[in-house]
Amino acid sequence: MTGRGRFITFEGIDGSGKSTQARRLAAALPGALLTREPGGSPGAEDIRHLVLTGDPGRWSAETEILLFTAARRDHLEKTIEPALSAGRTVVCDRFADSTRVYQGATRGDLRTMVDGLHELMIGREPDLTFVIDMDPEMALARVAAQGGAERRFEEFGLPLQQKVRAGFLALVRQFPARCILIDGDRDEDAVAADIAARLDLVPAP
Amino acid sequence: MTGRGRFITFEGIDGSGKSTQARRLAAALPGALLTREPGGSPGAEDIRHLVLTGDPGRWSAETEILLFTAARRDHLEKTIEPALSAGRTVVCDRFADSTRVYQGATRGDLRTMVDGLHELMIGREPDLTFVIDMDPEMALARVAAQGGAERRFEEFGLPLQQKVRAGFLALVRQFPARCILIDGDRDEDAVAADIAARLDLVPAP
Repeated sequence: MTGRGRFITFEGIDGSGKSTQARRLAAALPGALLTREPGGSPGAEDIRHLVLTGDPGRWSAETEILLFTAARRDHLEKTIEPALSAGRTVVCDRFADSTRVYQGATRGDLRTMVDGLHELMIGREPDLTFVIDMDPEMALARVAAQGGAERRFEEFGLPLQQKVRAGFLALVRQFPARCILIDGDRDEDAVAADIAARLDLVPAP
Repeated sequence: MTGRGRFITFEGIDGSGKSTQARRLAAALPGALLTREPGGSPGAEDIRHLVLTGDPGRWSAETEILLFTAARRDHLEKTIEPALSAGRTVVCDRFADSTRVYQGATRGDLRTMVDGLHELMIGREPDLTFVIDMDPEMALARVAAQGGAERRFEEFGLPLQQKVRAGFLALVRQFPARCILIDGDRDEDAVAADIAARLDLVPAP
Protein backbone atom coordinates (compact mmCIF):
# COMPACT_ATOMS: atom_id res chain seq x y z
CA MET A 1 0.00 0.00 0.00
CA THR A 2 1.07 3.52 -0.81
CA GLY A 3 1.06 6.17 1.88
CA ARG A 4 -0.63 9.50 1.45
CA GLY A 5 1.26 11.99 -0.71
CA ARG A 6 2.69 15.27 0.47
CA PHE A 7 0.97 18.58 -0.35
CA ILE A 8 3.56 21.31 -1.04
CA THR A 9 2.68 24.87 -2.04
CA PHE A 10 4.71 27.82 -3.32
CA GLU A 11 3.79 31.37 -2.39
CA GLY A 12 5.28 34.80 -3.01
CA ILE A 13 4.77 38.04 -4.91
CA ASP A 14 4.57 38.07 -8.71
CA GLY A 15 8.03 37.81 -10.22
CA SER A 16 9.53 36.13 -7.15
CA GLY A 17 10.31 33.03 -9.19
CA LYS A 18 7.88 30.79 -7.32
CA SER A 19 6.33 29.32 -10.48
CA THR A 20 9.76 28.42 -11.84
CA GLN A 21 10.76 26.86 -8.53
CA ALA A 22 7.47 24.94 -8.24
CA ARG A 23 8.07 23.51 -11.73
CA ARG A 24 11.66 22.56 -10.91
CA LEU A 25 10.74 20.87 -7.65
CA ALA A 26 7.89 18.90 -9.27
CA ALA A 27 10.28 17.76 -12.03
CA ALA A 28 12.79 16.62 -9.42
CA LEU A 29 10.31 14.52 -7.41
CA PRO A 30 9.32 11.21 -9.06
CA GLY A 31 5.60 11.03 -9.85
CA ALA A 32 4.86 14.51 -8.47
CA LEU A 33 1.88 16.43 -9.81
CA LEU A 34 2.41 20.10 -10.66
CA THR A 35 -0.66 22.31 -10.43
CA ARG A 36 -1.57 25.95 -9.82
CA GLU A 37 -4.18 28.38 -8.58
CA PRO A 38 -6.40 29.99 -9.52
CA GLY A 39 -7.27 27.00 -11.73
CA GLY A 40 -5.81 23.51 -11.64
CA SER A 41 -8.92 21.56 -12.72
CA PRO A 42 -11.16 22.04 -15.78
CA GLY A 43 -13.95 23.61 -13.70
CA ALA A 44 -11.56 25.83 -11.75
CA GLU A 45 -9.91 26.99 -14.97
CA ASP A 46 -13.35 28.04 -16.26
CA ILE A 47 -13.93 30.02 -13.05
CA ARG A 48 -10.43 31.54 -13.35
CA HIS A 49 -11.30 32.66 -16.87
CA LEU A 50 -14.56 34.21 -15.62
CA VAL A 51 -12.75 36.17 -12.88
CA LEU A 52 -9.64 37.28 -14.75
CA THR A 53 -11.18 38.42 -18.03
CA GLY A 54 -13.42 41.42 -18.66
CA ASP A 55 -13.53 44.69 -16.77
CA PRO A 56 -11.26 44.46 -13.66
CA GLY A 57 -13.98 46.22 -11.62
CA ARG A 58 -16.58 43.74 -12.77
CA TRP A 59 -16.70 41.76 -9.52
CA SER A 60 -16.64 43.10 -5.98
CA ALA A 61 -13.90 41.75 -3.72
CA GLU A 62 -16.54 39.69 -1.88
CA THR A 63 -17.87 38.05 -5.06
CA GLU A 64 -14.32 37.45 -6.27
CA ILE A 65 -13.43 35.67 -3.01
CA LEU A 66 -16.50 33.44 -3.42
CA LEU A 67 -15.51 32.60 -7.00
CA PHE A 68 -11.92 31.84 -6.03
CA THR A 69 -13.17 29.66 -3.17
CA ALA A 70 -15.45 27.78 -5.60
CA ALA A 71 -12.45 27.26 -7.90
CA ARG A 72 -10.34 26.07 -4.97
CA ARG A 73 -12.99 23.62 -3.81
CA ASP A 74 -13.18 22.14 -7.32
CA HIS A 75 -9.38 22.01 -7.64
CA LEU A 76 -9.09 20.28 -4.27
CA GLU A 77 -11.79 17.70 -5.04
CA LYS A 78 -10.88 16.93 -8.63
CA THR A 79 -7.08 17.32 -8.75
CA ILE A 80 -5.33 17.63 -5.39
CA GLU A 81 -7.09 15.11 -3.12
CA PRO A 82 -7.20 12.25 -5.68
CA ALA A 83 -3.43 12.63 -6.30
CA LEU A 84 -2.61 12.76 -2.58
CA SER A 85 -4.79 9.70 -1.95
CA ALA A 86 -2.89 7.85 -4.69
CA GLY A 87 0.34 8.61 -2.81
CA ARG A 88 1.58 11.30 -5.20
CA THR A 89 3.32 14.47 -4.10
CA VAL A 90 1.33 17.54 -5.15
CA VAL A 91 3.25 20.75 -5.88
CA CYS A 92 0.91 23.72 -6.17
CA ASP A 93 1.77 27.24 -7.36
CA ARG A 94 -0.33 29.39 -4.97
CA PHE A 95 -3.11 28.15 -2.68
CA ALA A 96 -5.23 29.61 0.13
CA ASP A 97 -2.33 31.69 1.49
CA SER A 98 -2.46 33.85 -1.65
CA THR A 99 -6.11 34.69 -0.99
CA ARG A 100 -5.31 35.52 2.63
CA VAL A 101 -2.40 37.75 1.75
CA TYR A 102 -3.70 39.50 -1.40
CA GLN A 103 -7.15 40.22 0.05
CA GLY A 104 -5.58 41.32 3.32
CA ALA A 105 -3.26 43.69 1.45
CA THR A 106 -6.04 45.29 -0.57
CA ARG A 107 -8.77 45.37 2.10
CA GLY A 108 -7.88 44.25 5.61
CA ASP A 109 -11.55 44.10 6.64
CA LEU A 110 -12.01 41.08 4.37
CA ARG A 111 -9.78 38.79 6.40
CA THR A 112 -12.63 37.55 8.65
CA MET A 113 -14.64 36.68 5.54
CA VAL A 114 -11.67 34.93 3.90
CA ASP A 115 -10.92 32.92 7.06
CA GLY A 116 -14.60 32.03 7.60
CA LEU A 117 -14.96 30.82 4.01
CA HIS A 118 -11.77 28.78 4.22
CA GLU A 119 -12.88 27.08 7.43
CA LEU A 120 -16.39 26.37 6.10
CA MET A 121 -15.62 25.28 2.53
CA ILE A 122 -11.94 24.27 2.25
CA GLY A 123 -10.56 23.23 5.64
CA ARG A 124 -7.25 22.09 4.20
CA GLU A 125 -3.74 23.43 4.72
CA PRO A 126 -0.62 22.31 2.82
CA ASP A 127 1.87 20.05 4.60
CA LEU A 128 4.64 22.41 3.54
CA THR A 129 4.73 25.92 2.04
CA PHE A 130 7.76 27.59 0.48
CA VAL A 131 7.42 31.36 0.66
CA ILE A 132 9.81 32.89 -1.85
CA ASP A 133 10.78 36.31 -0.58
CA MET A 134 12.10 39.04 -2.84
CA ASP A 135 12.47 42.78 -3.15
CA PRO A 136 9.28 43.97 -4.93
CA GLU A 137 11.12 46.40 -7.21
CA MET A 138 13.30 43.62 -8.58
CA ALA A 139 10.31 41.29 -8.82
CA LEU A 140 8.24 43.84 -10.76
CA ALA A 141 11.15 44.37 -13.16
CA ARG A 142 11.23 40.60 -13.72
CA VAL A 143 7.48 40.48 -14.40
CA ALA A 144 7.75 43.36 -16.87
CA ALA A 145 10.72 41.71 -18.62
CA GLN A 146 8.80 38.42 -19.01
CA GLY A 147 5.80 40.27 -20.44
CA GLY A 148 3.56 37.28 -19.89
CA ALA A 149 1.93 38.09 -16.56
CA GLU A 150 -1.78 38.73 -16.52
CA ARG A 151 -2.57 42.43 -16.63
CA ARG A 152 -4.77 42.15 -13.60
CA PHE A 153 -1.95 41.25 -11.23
CA GLU A 154 0.59 43.48 -12.93
CA GLU A 155 -1.42 46.64 -12.56
CA PHE A 156 -1.42 46.44 -8.78
CA GLY A 157 1.98 48.16 -8.89
CA LEU A 158 4.74 48.62 -6.36
CA PRO A 159 2.94 49.90 -3.20
CA LEU A 160 0.62 46.91 -3.23
CA GLN A 161 3.47 44.47 -3.91
CA GLN A 162 5.21 45.86 -0.84
CA LYS A 163 2.11 45.22 1.26
CA VAL A 164 1.80 41.75 -0.19
CA ARG A 165 5.44 40.99 0.64
CA ALA A 166 4.81 42.10 4.22
CA GLY A 167 1.71 39.88 4.24
CA PHE A 168 3.72 36.82 3.21
CA LEU A 169 6.34 37.52 5.89
CA ALA A 170 3.52 37.73 8.48
CA LEU A 171 2.15 34.44 7.16
CA VAL A 172 5.46 32.68 7.85
CA ARG A 173 5.25 33.93 11.44
CA GLN A 174 1.59 32.83 11.71
CA PHE A 175 2.18 29.29 10.39
CA PRO A 176 5.79 28.52 11.40
CA ALA A 177 5.26 24.73 11.41
CA ARG A 178 4.56 24.51 7.68
CA CYS A 179 6.05 27.69 6.16
CA ILE A 180 9.67 27.94 5.07
CA LEU A 181 11.00 31.34 4.02
CA ILE A 182 13.31 31.21 0.99
CA ASP A 183 15.49 34.10 -0.19
CA GLY A 184 14.48 34.46 -3.85
CA ASP A 185 16.99 37.16 -4.66
CA ARG A 186 19.65 34.73 -5.93
CA ASP A 187 20.15 32.89 -9.20
CA GLU A 188 17.61 30.23 -10.03
CA ASP A 189 19.92 27.24 -9.42
CA ALA A 190 20.93 28.49 -5.97
CA VAL A 191 17.28 28.92 -4.95
CA ALA A 192 16.39 25.45 -6.27
CA ALA A 193 19.28 23.87 -4.36
CA ASP A 194 18.17 25.64 -1.18
CA ILE A 195 14.59 24.36 -1.59
CA ALA A 196 15.77 20.79 -2.23
CA ALA A 197 17.95 20.91 0.88
CA ARG A 198 15.09 22.21 3.04
CA LEU A 199 12.71 19.57 1.72
CA ASP A 200 15.01 16.82 2.91
CA LEU A 201 14.69 18.13 6.46
CA VAL A 202 10.90 17.68 6.51
CA PRO A 203 9.62 14.09 6.81
CA ALA A 204 6.81 12.91 4.51
CA PRO A 205 3.42 12.51 6.25
CA MET B 1 -37.08 61.82 -0.10
CA THR B 2 -38.11 58.34 -1.12
CA GLY B 3 -38.27 55.55 1.46
CA ARG B 4 -36.55 52.26 1.01
CA GLY B 5 -38.28 49.83 -1.37
CA ARG B 6 -39.79 46.52 -0.40
CA PHE B 7 -37.99 43.25 -1.25
CA ILE B 8 -40.53 40.56 -2.24
CA THR B 9 -39.57 37.04 -3.29
CA PHE B 10 -41.50 34.14 -4.84
CA GLU B 11 -40.64 30.56 -4.00
CA GLY B 12 -42.09 27.16 -4.86
CA ILE B 13 -41.45 24.01 -6.85
CA ASP B 14 -41.00 24.12 -10.63
CA GLY B 15 -44.35 24.45 -12.36
CA SER B 16 -46.05 26.01 -9.34
CA GLY B 17 -46.67 29.17 -11.31
CA LYS B 18 -44.39 31.35 -9.17
CA SER B 19 -42.62 32.93 -12.17
CA THR B 20 -45.95 33.89 -13.73
CA GLN B 21 -47.18 35.33 -10.43
CA ALA B 22 -43.92 37.22 -9.85
CA ARG B 23 -44.28 38.78 -13.30
CA ARG B 24 -47.93 39.71 -12.69
CA LEU B 25 -47.21 41.28 -9.31
CA ALA B 26 -44.27 43.30 -10.64
CA ALA B 27 -46.45 44.55 -13.52
CA ALA B 28 -49.14 45.62 -11.05
CA LEU B 29 -46.81 47.62 -8.78
CA PRO B 30 -45.72 50.99 -10.22
CA GLY B 31 -41.94 51.17 -10.76
CA ALA B 32 -41.31 47.66 -9.47
CA LEU B 33 -38.23 45.78 -10.67
CA LEU B 34 -38.71 42.14 -11.69
CA THR B 35 -35.64 39.93 -11.34
CA ARG B 36 -34.78 36.26 -10.82
CA GLU B 37 -32.26 33.79 -9.49
CA PRO B 38 -29.97 32.22 -10.34
CA GLY B 39 -28.96 35.26 -12.36
CA GLY B 40 -30.42 38.76 -12.23
CA SER B 41 -27.24 40.75 -12.99
CA PRO B 42 -24.80 40.38 -15.90
CA GLY B 43 -22.16 38.71 -13.70
CA ALA B 44 -24.67 36.42 -12.00
CA GLU B 45 -26.10 35.40 -15.39
CA ASP B 46 -22.58 34.39 -16.47
CA ILE B 47 -22.21 32.30 -13.30
CA ARG B 48 -25.68 30.80 -13.90
CA HIS B 49 -24.57 29.79 -17.39
CA LEU B 50 -21.40 28.20 -15.98
CA VAL B 51 -23.40 26.14 -13.45
CA LEU B 52 -26.37 25.11 -15.57
CA THR B 53 -24.62 24.07 -18.79
CA GLY B 54 -22.32 21.13 -19.36
CA ASP B 55 -22.34 17.76 -17.62
CA PRO B 56 -24.81 17.88 -14.66
CA GLY B 57 -22.24 16.04 -12.51
CA ARG B 58 -19.57 18.56 -13.36
CA TRP B 59 -19.70 20.42 -10.04
CA SER B 60 -19.99 18.94 -6.57
CA ALA B 61 -22.89 20.20 -4.46
CA GLU B 62 -20.39 22.20 -2.36
CA THR B 63 -18.85 23.96 -5.37
CA GLU B 64 -22.30 24.61 -6.80
CA ILE B 65 -23.42 26.26 -3.55
CA LEU B 66 -20.33 28.50 -3.67
CA LEU B 67 -21.07 29.48 -7.26
CA PHE B 68 -24.73 30.21 -6.52
CA THR B 69 -23.68 32.27 -3.50
CA ALA B 70 -21.23 34.25 -5.67
CA ALA B 71 -24.06 34.86 -8.17
CA ARG B 72 -26.40 35.93 -5.35
CA ARG B 73 -23.82 38.33 -3.92
CA ASP B 74 -23.38 39.96 -7.34
CA HIS B 75 -27.15 40.08 -7.93
CA LEU B 76 -27.68 41.68 -4.52
CA GLU B 77 -24.93 44.30 -4.99
CA LYS B 78 -25.59 45.21 -8.60
CA THR B 79 -29.36 44.83 -9.00
CA ILE B 80 -31.37 44.39 -5.80
CA GLU B 81 -29.76 46.81 -3.31
CA PRO B 82 -29.47 49.77 -5.74
CA ALA B 83 -33.18 49.42 -6.64
CA LEU B 84 -34.27 49.14 -2.98
CA SER B 85 -32.13 52.17 -2.09
CA ALA B 86 -33.84 54.12 -4.87
CA GLY B 87 -37.19 53.32 -3.28
CA ARG B 88 -38.27 50.72 -5.85
CA THR B 89 -40.08 47.51 -4.99
CA VAL B 90 -38.01 44.49 -6.02
CA VAL B 91 -39.86 41.30 -7.01
CA CYS B 92 -37.50 38.34 -7.25
CA ASP B 93 -38.29 34.88 -8.65
CA ARG B 94 -36.35 32.63 -6.20
CA PHE B 95 -33.74 33.78 -3.67
CA ALA B 96 -31.82 32.20 -0.77
CA ASP B 97 -34.81 30.08 0.29
CA SER B 98 -34.46 28.04 -2.92
CA THR B 99 -30.87 27.17 -2.03
CA ARG B 100 -31.91 26.19 1.50
CA VAL B 101 -34.76 24.01 0.31
CA TYR B 102 -33.25 22.37 -2.78
CA GLN B 103 -29.90 21.60 -1.12
CA GLY B 104 -31.71 20.37 2.00
CA ALA B 105 -33.90 18.08 -0.15
CA THR B 106 -30.96 16.56 -2.02
CA ARG B 107 -28.41 16.37 0.84
CA GLY B 108 -29.56 17.35 4.31
CA ASP B 109 -25.96 17.45 5.60
CA LEU B 110 -25.35 20.56 3.49
CA ARG B 111 -27.72 22.77 5.45
CA THR B 112 -25.04 23.92 7.93
CA MET B 113 -22.82 24.91 5.01
CA VAL B 114 -25.67 26.73 3.24
CA ASP B 115 -26.63 28.61 6.41
CA GLY B 116 -23.01 29.48 7.23
CA LEU B 117 -22.39 30.83 3.74
CA HIS B 118 -25.59 32.87 3.80
CA GLU B 119 -24.71 34.44 7.14
CA LEU B 120 -21.12 35.20 6.10
CA MET B 121 -21.65 36.41 2.52
CA ILE B 122 -25.30 37.45 2.01
CA GLY B 123 -26.89 38.33 5.35
CA ARG B 124 -30.10 39.55 3.73
CA GLU B 125 -33.66 38.19 3.94
CA PRO B 126 -36.62 39.39 1.87
CA ASP B 127 -39.23 41.58 3.56
CA LEU B 128 -41.92 39.27 2.21
CA THR B 129 -41.90 35.84 0.57
CA PHE B 130 -44.81 34.25 -1.27
CA VAL B 131 -44.48 30.47 -1.20
CA ILE B 132 -46.70 29.03 -3.94
CA ASP B 133 -47.74 25.57 -2.87
CA MET B 134 -48.90 22.95 -5.32
CA ASP B 135 -49.23 19.22 -5.81
CA PRO B 136 -45.92 18.11 -7.40
CA GLU B 137 -47.60 15.77 -9.90
CA MET B 138 -49.66 18.60 -11.31
CA ALA B 139 -46.68 20.94 -11.25
CA LEU B 140 -44.50 18.46 -13.14
CA ALA B 141 -47.21 18.03 -15.75
CA ARG B 142 -47.27 21.83 -16.17
CA VAL B 143 -43.47 21.96 -16.57
CA ALA B 144 -43.55 19.19 -19.16
CA ALA B 145 -46.38 20.90 -21.07
CA GLN B 146 -44.45 24.21 -21.16
CA GLY B 147 -41.36 22.41 -22.45
CA GLY B 148 -39.18 25.38 -21.62
CA ALA B 149 -37.77 24.45 -18.23
CA GLU B 150 -34.07 23.80 -17.99
CA ARG B 151 -33.27 20.11 -18.19
CA ARG B 152 -31.30 20.23 -15.00
CA PHE B 153 -34.28 21.06 -12.80
CA GLU B 154 -36.72 18.90 -14.74
CA GLU B 155 -34.72 15.74 -14.37
CA PHE B 156 -34.98 15.78 -10.60
CA GLY B 157 -38.38 14.07 -11.00
CA LEU B 158 -41.31 13.51 -8.71
CA PRO B 159 -39.74 12.11 -5.49
CA LEU B 160 -37.42 15.08 -5.23
CA GLN B 161 -40.21 17.56 -6.01
CA GLN B 162 -42.17 16.04 -3.12
CA LYS B 163 -39.21 16.57 -0.79
CA VAL B 164 -38.81 20.12 -2.08
CA ARG B 165 -42.50 20.84 -1.48
CA ALA B 166 -42.12 19.59 2.10
CA GLY B 167 -39.03 21.81 2.43
CA PHE B 168 -40.97 24.90 1.38
CA LEU B 169 -43.76 24.10 3.84
CA ALA B 170 -41.14 23.76 6.60
CA LEU B 171 -39.67 27.11 5.51
CA VAL B 172 -43.01 28.86 6.04
CA ARG B 173 -43.05 27.47 9.58
CA GLN B 174 -39.43 28.54 10.15
CA PHE B 175 -39.95 32.14 8.95
CA PRO B 176 -43.61 32.87 9.72
CA ALA B 177 -43.10 36.65 9.90
CA ARG B 178 -42.12 37.02 6.26
CA CYS B 179 -43.49 33.90 4.52
CA ILE B 180 -47.05 33.70 3.17
CA LEU B 181 -48.28 30.35 1.90
CA ILE B 182 -50.39 30.60 -1.27
CA ASP B 183 -52.46 27.77 -2.72
CA GLY B 184 -51.21 27.57 -6.33
CA ASP B 185 -53.67 24.89 -7.39
CA ARG B 186 -56.21 27.39 -8.74
CA ASP B 187 -56.51 29.34 -11.95
CA GLU B 188 -53.91 32.04 -12.51
CA ASP B 189 -56.25 35.01 -11.94
CA ALA B 190 -57.51 33.63 -8.63
CA VAL B 191 -53.93 33.14 -7.38
CA ALA B 192 -52.96 36.66 -8.50
CA ALA B 193 -55.97 38.18 -6.72
CA ASP B 194 -55.08 36.27 -3.54
CA ILE B 195 -51.48 37.57 -3.66
CA ALA B 196 -52.61 41.16 -4.23
CA ALA B 197 -55.00 40.92 -1.28
CA ARG B 198 -52.32 39.52 1.03
CA LEU B 199 -49.84 42.20 -0.05
CA ASP B 200 -52.20 44.93 1.12
CA LEU B 201 -52.14 43.45 4.62
CA VAL B 202 -48.37 43.88 4.94
CA PRO B 203 -47.12 47.44 5.47
CA ALA B 204 -44.17 48.71 3.41
CA PRO B 205 -40.90 49.03 5.39
